[in-house]
Amino acid sequence: MNADLLIINGRIATPGGVYSAAIAVRNGQIAAITSDPAGIVASETIDAAGLHVLPGIVDSEAHPGCYNPFRKDLESESRAAAAAGVTTWGVHQPSTRLGAEPFVEFVQKEDVGPFLPVMPGCLKIIEAVSAVDVFITPMVETDEQVAEIPRLAGEFGITSYKLYCQSMKPELDKYWAGRKAGLGAGFDDGVIFGVMSEVAKLGGSGITQIHAENWQIARLFERKLIAEGRTDFAAWTDRSPDFCETHHVRSFGYLAKITGSPLFVQHASVRTTHEEILRMRGEGVRVYGNTGPAWLYLEPNQEAWRINVPVRYPVEREAVWKALAQDRGVDSVSSDHVISWLPNQRDVMFNDNIWKLRTGFTSRVEMLLPVMLGYGVNGGRISLERAVQVMCENPAKIYGLFPKKGCIQVGADADFCLVDLEKEVTVGKDQVASGSGWSIVEGHTFKGWPVRTILRGKTTSHWKPGAAGPTVIRGGTHGRYLPRIAGKSFQPVS
Amino acid sequence: MNADLLIINGRIATPGGVYSAAIAVRNGQIAAITSDPAGIVASETIDAAGLHVLPGIVDSEAHPGCYNPFRKDLESESRAAAAAGVTTWGVHQPSTRLGAEPFVEFVQKEDVGPFLPVMPGCLKIIEAVSAVDVFITPMVETDEQVAEIPRLAGEFGITSYKLYCQSMKPELDKYWAGRKAGLGAGFDDGVIFGVMSEVAKLGGSGITQIHAENWQIARLFERKLIAEGRTDFAAWTDRSPDFCETHHVRSFGYLAKITGSPLFVQHASVRTTHEEILRMRGEGVRVYGNTGPAWLYLEPNQEAWRINVPVRYPVEREAVWKALAQDRGVDSVSSDHVISWLPNQRDVMFNDNIWKLRTGFTSRVEMLLPVMLGYGVNGGRISLERAVQVMCENPAKIYGLFPKKGCIQVGADADFCLVDLEKEVTVGKDQVASGSGWSIVEGHTFKGWPVRTILRGKTTSHWKPGAAGPTVIRGGTHGRYLPRIAGKSFQPVS
Amino acid sequence: MNADLLIINGRIATPGGVYSAAIAVRNGQIAAITSDPAGIVASETIDAAGLHVLPGIVDSEAHPGCYNPFRKDLESESRAAAAAGVTTWGVHQPSTRLGAEPFVEFVQKEDVGPFLPVMPGCLKIIEAVSAVDVFITPMVETDEQVAEIPRLAGEFGITSYKLYCQSMKPELDKYWAGRKAGLGAGFDDGVIFGVMSEVAKLGGSGITQIHAENWQIARLFERKLIAEGRTDFAAWTDRSPDFCETHHVRSFGYLAKITGSPLFVQHASVRTTHEEILRMRGEGVRVYGNTGPAWLYLEPNQEAWRINVPVRYPVEREAVWKALAQDRGVDSVSSDHVISWLPNQRDVMFNDNIWKLRTGFTSRVEMLLPVMLGYGVNGGRISLERAVQVMCENPAKIYGLFPKKGCIQVGADADFCLVDLEKEVTVGKDQVASGSGWSIVEGHTFKGWPVRTILRGKTTSHWKPGAAGPTVIRGGTHGRYLPRIAGKSFQPVS
Amino acid sequence: MNADLLIINGRIATPGGVYSAAIAVRNGQIAAITSDPAGIVASETIDAAGLHVLPGIVDSEAHPGCYNPFRKDLESESRAAAAAGVTTWGVHQPSTRLGAEPFVEFVQKEDVGPFLPVMPGCLKIIEAVSAVDVFITPMVETDEQVAEIPRLAGEFGITSYKLYCQSMKPELDKYWAGRKAGLGAGFDDGVIFGVMSEVAKLGGSGITQIHAENWQIARLFERKLIAEGRTDFAAWTDRSPDFCETHHVRSFGYLAKITGSPLFVQHASVRTTHEEILRMRGEGVRVYGNTGPAWLYLEPNQEAWRINVPVRYPVEREAVWKALAQDRGVDSVSSDHVISWLPNQRDVMFNDNIWKLRTGFTSRVEMLLPVMLGYGVNGGRISLERAVQVMCENPAKIYGLFPKKGCIQVGADADFCLVDLEKEVTVGKDQVASGSGWSIVEGHTFKGWPVRTILRGKTTSHWKPGAAGPTVIRGGTHGRYLPRIAGKSFQPVS
Repeated sequence: MNADLLIINGRIATPGGVYSAAIAVRNGQIAAITSDPAGIVASETIDAAGLHVLPGIVDSEAHPGCYNPFRKDLESESRAAAAAGVTTWGVHQPSTRLGAEPFVEFVQKEDVGPFLPVMPGCLKIIEAVSAVDVFITPMVETDEQVAEIPRLAGEFGITSYKLYCQSMKPELDKYWAGRKAGLGAGFDDGVIFGVMSEVAKLGGSGITQIHAENWQIARLFERKLIAEGRTDFAAWTDRSPDFCETHHVRSFGYLAKITGSPLFVQHASVRTTHEEILRMRGEGVRVYGNTGPAWLYLEPNQEAWRINVPVRYPVEREAVWKALAQDRGVDSVSSDHVISWLPNQRDVMFNDNIWKLRTGFTSRVEMLLPVMLGYGVNGGRISLERAVQVMCENPAKIYGLFPKKGCIQVGADADFCLVDLEKEVTVGKDQVASGSGWSIVEGHTFKGWPVRTILRGKTTSHWKPGAAGPTVIRGGTHGRYLPRIAGKSFQPVS
Repeated sequence: MNADLLIINGRIATPGGVYSAAIAVRNGQIAAITSDPAGIVASETIDAAGLHVLPGIVDSEAHPGCYNPFRKDLESESRAAAAAGVTTWGVHQPSTRLGAEPFVEFVQKEDVGPFLPVMPGCLKIIEAVSAVDVFITPMVETDEQVAEIPRLAGEFGITSYKLYCQSMKPELDKYWAGRKAGLGAGFDDGVIFGVMSEVAKLGGSGITQIHAENWQIARLFERKLIAEGRTDFAAWTDRSPDFCETHHVRSFGYLAKITGSPLFVQHASVRTTHEEILRMRGEGVRVYGNTGPAWLYLEPNQEAWRINVPVRYPVEREAVWKALAQDRGVDSVSSDHVISWLPNQRDVMFNDNIWKLRTGFTSRVEMLLPVMLGYGVNGGRISLERAVQVMCENPAKIYGLFPKKGCIQVGADADFCLVDLEKEVTVGKDQVASGSGWSIVEGHTFKGWPVRTILRGKTTSHWKPGAAGPTVIRGGTHGRYLPRIAGKSFQPVS
Repeated sequence: MNADLLIINGRIATPGGVYSAAIAVRNGQIAAITSDPAGIVASETIDAAGLHVLPGIVDSEAHPGCYNPFRKDLESESRAAAAAGVTTWGVHQPSTRLGAEPFVEFVQKEDVGPFLPVMPGCLKIIEAVSAVDVFITPMVETDEQVAEIPRLAGEFGITSYKLYCQSMKPELDKYWAGRKAGLGAGFDDGVIFGVMSEVAKLGGSGITQIHAENWQIARLFERKLIAEGRTDFAAWTDRSPDFCETHHVRSFGYLAKITGSPLFVQHASVRTTHEEILRMRGEGVRVYGNTGPAWLYLEPNQEAWRINVPVRYPVEREAVWKALAQDRGVDSVSSDHVISWLPNQRDVMFNDNIWKLRTGFTSRVEMLLPVMLGYGVNGGRISLERAVQVMCENPAKIYGLFPKKGCIQVGADADFCLVDLEKEVTVGKDQVASGSGWSIVEGHTFKGWPVRTILRGKTTSHWKPGAAGPTVIRGGTHGRYLPRIAGKSFQPVS
Repeated sequence: MNADLLIINGRIATPGGVYSAAIAVRNGQIAAITSDPAGIVASETIDAAGLHVLPGIVDSEAHPGCYNPFRKDLESESRAAAAAGVTTWGVHQPSTRLGAEPFVEFVQKEDVGPFLPVMPGCLKIIEAVSAVDVFITPMVETDEQVAEIPRLAGEFGITSYKLYCQSMKPELDKYWAGRKAGLGAGFDDGVIFGVMSEVAKLGGSGITQIHAENWQIARLFERKLIAEGRTDFAAWTDRSPDFCETHHVRSFGYLAKITGSPLFVQHASVRTTHEEILRMRGEGVRVYGNTGPAWLYLEPNQEAWRINVPVRYPVEREAVWKALAQDRGVDSVSSDHVISWLPNQRDVMFNDNIWKLRTGFTSRVEMLLPVMLGYGVNGGRISLERAVQVMCENPAKIYGLFPKKGCIQVGADADFCLVDLEKEVTVGKDQVASGSGWSIVEGHTFKGWPVRTILRGKTTSHWKPGAAGPTVIRGGTHGRYLPRIAGKSFQPVS
């Protein structure tokens, strides 16, 4: 047969095992998987000897456009994602941050408008500048936006919706840059119930996400910590104890039960949350837990900066690894990638007083695989098979993209992430593709890196042997918008 | 490339979607899956146009050897299994029924010996006569057998163990042919705890099965029903209410939690059991539910005969479908195939008084796919994708055979079940390959049948177009024994 | 012995049984309980032949001062309470409604001040005008009020605090007269958490009350019902489905677990709430359920008017009776008595459009015993013993007043409610002592009425044989303020 | 008034508080409770100055007749009980041990007969020799005995039934003197289900007791400990880990849920059991936990001897105190009193090899109050009010004897236990009234002792000031049999 691309000599890594085979790509899809590629004539052949071939990473949560105009941010950060092995990105944004014109730096309530008019422009931007395929998870804030869900699903294939629970409270503006992040309305349990009710009606891949963190309670701890004179980084962890997270899981999990909506807990960062997720499944609720590299690696007493939910103490971090590795309440991993507003160099953002430190540390997507492969697989915390499951198969299934995305199967999109489990690198600016130009884990050494990313058969990033870091391929700008199909759990392949 | 076998024009059905591709087989394994088989030169080509290509069915519970010598039973019944689409069989037997010589018709306590000495002969029989690959799940009865588990796992790759809870009670001999089925010892919670403790130590694919049915309580209902003069078939259902099953799930589920053993509930036939399974997962127990064609199709007021656990009323049957289809407490399907002792023709066995009716109705494996495809998929009760998952992927994963078995993936065993979803047949003796010569569902019409079974690249059964039923291929006698790997969840492929 | 008062020939009704004995009172306390009162010389003797002698009713929730100045309301409504058999009243009010001067009709945020300065005046009013003993349950709205709890407990013996969850939402002002009821601040989960944390520190009788009803979700149903053109009374029930109530129980029950505060669910009006209460006890939370005559008797399709939580359909009403009678999640009964602002005659308040009907129907305390005795005890729904437990012993214990209040025991306050279980009366204005002058249950016939109320040895109300209704005794104005003891569960007697 | 007995100057201790009052007794019942006894003319006056007057202790589990003929054992041991403050004894025995003639030392299956023929003789013995009032809790072993329950309830007022779960297993005969204790049949879950079904039908005070301890699992630990050469006393604890107890609670708790029978867990000795009890209440099961002085005081590494369930390690013991004191899963206390077969002096019974040590250590009833008052109340582990509740009110209520027994109320039986909370004594043979003549806690010092026991107005035991121990009054032999009333929760008083 003829093929556009042939990948030989690699070890294919799937949730169900690791095996040797060649992969032939035609028209952007996997045309063949074969133990004997001898007869295949390919325009391009990649020798993956010594490498593992993973499905392209499906990163279900990222925030390009959060603090900068969408086009600009997506252009630079989707390259960082490509460099990091990602081929599919789930962009979570409010309507004000999906390319709405003009870009409003500090969003007010009146700036929060409907999604439907914004979507066409959003799609154009994606197809114009993205280096990764993109699906959208709107961050809903108003009843009016809830009412858009049926049309958003029908016309744009949007079946996932996010609730940044308790996001807008005047008393919290001080510490969380919500208005700068495009949120302006604030919302109550009615909006949450409304979203879940509409999502439940979608069926199939319909799913409600929540950022579970009760800031209304956290403010009491914040007040207390400030009163005690705490300014260290661990104060950010102490400000939002485990039950602030688990309370939301329990509370909104009940509404998921009542409405019938599946629930995706964005960062299940503490043991009590894992237990609550299991318990809720025991009540018949379809609930998933997610985590990310920050909670899997960073420590409160490091220069962990600020992130919400906060980085946890090592005992909880290891509990997250256990829940992730053993399939006990954590099902997937995403980057939560974001970059801050300009100027956003480290020195400008940094302050050793946690209350003055700027939120939004960078390069999260680029630490995803080093953490999963280096600290995780090579650190004995998770099997490679399970790592593939939580980075590829599960997010693709949960978000209705499987098997088009998230697996290596004939007919699927030819998205791959080639990784070198033996490559050991100490992070420096050379490995950073993000527009911000720096990384939170500079100076940390990881063994296990992505070395090539292939999106629908085309290499989008390549870390050449001997090079200091990956090179993003300009021709890689062929990211597409990914609609899903309301009422279907799967994305059919031919 | 060259291939031994090439399957073209079929629709490959996997848990993650249905797609068109050709499959090339070499040396009994899948060598390639390709959208363009043009360049493949194959010794044999099968045109699967109009058919779906499923992984070979992994039937995790069958009882060849139960009432007749193992060699004889396995020879005839593994052919019935092959005819039914099965390529991998999980044989559940006590030590007295794995080919132990001499065959003891009515087993007594002293006949119950260790497994280790029996296994070599058992393996020889399997390799000599079986038309399907076989893995063994010993039915443990004594402390001495519990003590064998580490060696059974290490030397024979046996990682699954069954407990026919409360099987031997003198007061039950009357109604259940336990001694005829090779059970002789009876056992207490200590044996159950012992099995689970040893299984937990195995890790990986180690799993404890239970037949959940509290006969100690059922005997009260039996006494009452007999006193009331009930002799109808539904009395067998009324004799063992839902809580008799769920009680065991709760009780032994707790021991699974304490020991850390995964638990496989053999027939999760009632809603209360599904709920209990979910609830126990909520406590962190790894517990699976299973069902079978009897509980998915038959009704108490039909000529349903006797089976344990009993066939349930339609409201429960539909609840089983829902739990199976929606992944809410039922994870897999198995046949529970058995044939009775000789003579075992229908007329000999039948009695319209349920208390005199002989247990062990036949042809269960042959009704598996007609029920799953006809009553299930074509009846709108389950998707084809999920049907494949519960008949192939899940049992293979649960029993540590994946991805060698249970999937269509390069490197996996070339086991396939080709099905014709449009084929409509009214069951008669022509479709029966079992040595018993008859079927419990004679006269019932199903749309959706297996038409060809392929085991490691060789056709073992073929229902030729126009033929009245499937023909089992003699050369199909190349079933092998399947060891698993203690401590591993997966069966590595190359 | 000498006594101030001797009650003879009655049947004493306690939670532990009903027995015949005489009661001697000295200095406002029970001095003796005796089967032979022959030697007792008493200033006053009451012949209770044919009557049952209950402890004075401990009504833990009433709202004098809610819509009218506290002094005026307490003066008139405490007389209604006395007429109804009540001797101890739990007054729930925000700081603006405990006699704060001047009386602000429509409270704004800035009107919501601290409790400490208001309490001395509040106590003076109680001692000046009340016909019943009174303890206070502040309705907390602000962080500043949370900070007052230690001093309120230490200086005023206030150990119970109420949260009218989600009370102030601008979008709800339209349908609930919150600002007219003295609430002005609104509050978040932080205030709830703060109250519970402070209450937990109190120990002993410390308890947090919640009004469990998620109005943020109810507003969606309200919007939908209005859009559908519904104006009937049952729309008020449909506006706030069971899960709106149960959601709060689950959500705030979790915070009770985290903080260690006991939780009192003000109106556990639906089966799902009872189940949730039991389940939370299973997690180790000390949680109580309460109900009242509205939910035990009225129906949505009657002229039930508006109340929050709404009156439920009969199936839920009977579930409340079952939970109350069988001690399965409902532990006590209170009146939730209130009268509306002037003018408040029935005709002025009434509207057959539920959305225009005024909230706050009257005479709830006066329907308490007719419902409990007539519809309950004589209707076969509850035993007299359990009725005494839920109206006297349990509220007194939960609120730290036992055994001074809530029982008939030597040393306890000589508070009694004499009831005639055979008295059958159709309600008319003659039985109404409330300042509002009418009753929601006019025209309804009940068998079982209070006929005399005695507070610390003095009759406060008497329904003389042949009279049309009870006469409140002017000399009954000797109600006192009841402090409780932080850190103690009991109110010690000498 | 005239009285037979007048108790003055004492502090009456009730679950609801402690107060000063005199008590007048007439015809064995409490005739008056009064703060002013001046006018009462009594045949006998007891000055209780410095003492607390408790209701007579209701000890719900004791085993007179277990290893010796019932008449002989009851005569001696009921005196020990009287000396210990007990006025009501719940005797748990199989039919062979309620005075059946002839006394069979080693009971065999055929010796286990019905209860109905034994009861008349049993009652005669009680009325002839007992120093305490007695109610019977049959230990059921057979279906035939299950069938007797309706008549036992109707004719003899027996509403409580005990299941010594898993008592008779041949393999356990070696270590537990079951046949010597009168048990001979062994039973299965059917008997348990049968008992619960019949008890559920009784309603009211109907209750099923279980000895929760899975000996079928414990035998594995026993085998292992013996194999390891363990002979120390703590091996008895290690033989029966917490989950052996909790497993039965979960398993049989489910049957209680299914049948609707209340459940009484005889010794809730571990934290996991308390949690399970709370959880089961959360499922709506009416379940009570009990404990006793052995589990509240002894330690495995003391000379704790053997008892079932075993004495636990201190961390569990303190957990029992917490659950008991805080009403979190433990509701009552009983002695589990028994004496061994003759000869039963300490030296004869003792062996420093736990496997050879004889079961049945003595004097448990006599350690009840010293443990509860000395180690408990004076040790700060429990309040006096709660101690009275768990020793008097709760057992009386649970077993349907309240308010005749278990409280101090006019009309109730005049049963009292006068205790001196300041009396400090080191235990020696002088304080032992049991026929065995010795105590397990000899040499231990307790502060807080019973000094006088009064049964229906007559002193049955008196520890005179200055005396070395209590003197049992011969005239105290007026114990009576206590029938309960099927269908009633209360024992009505006049």
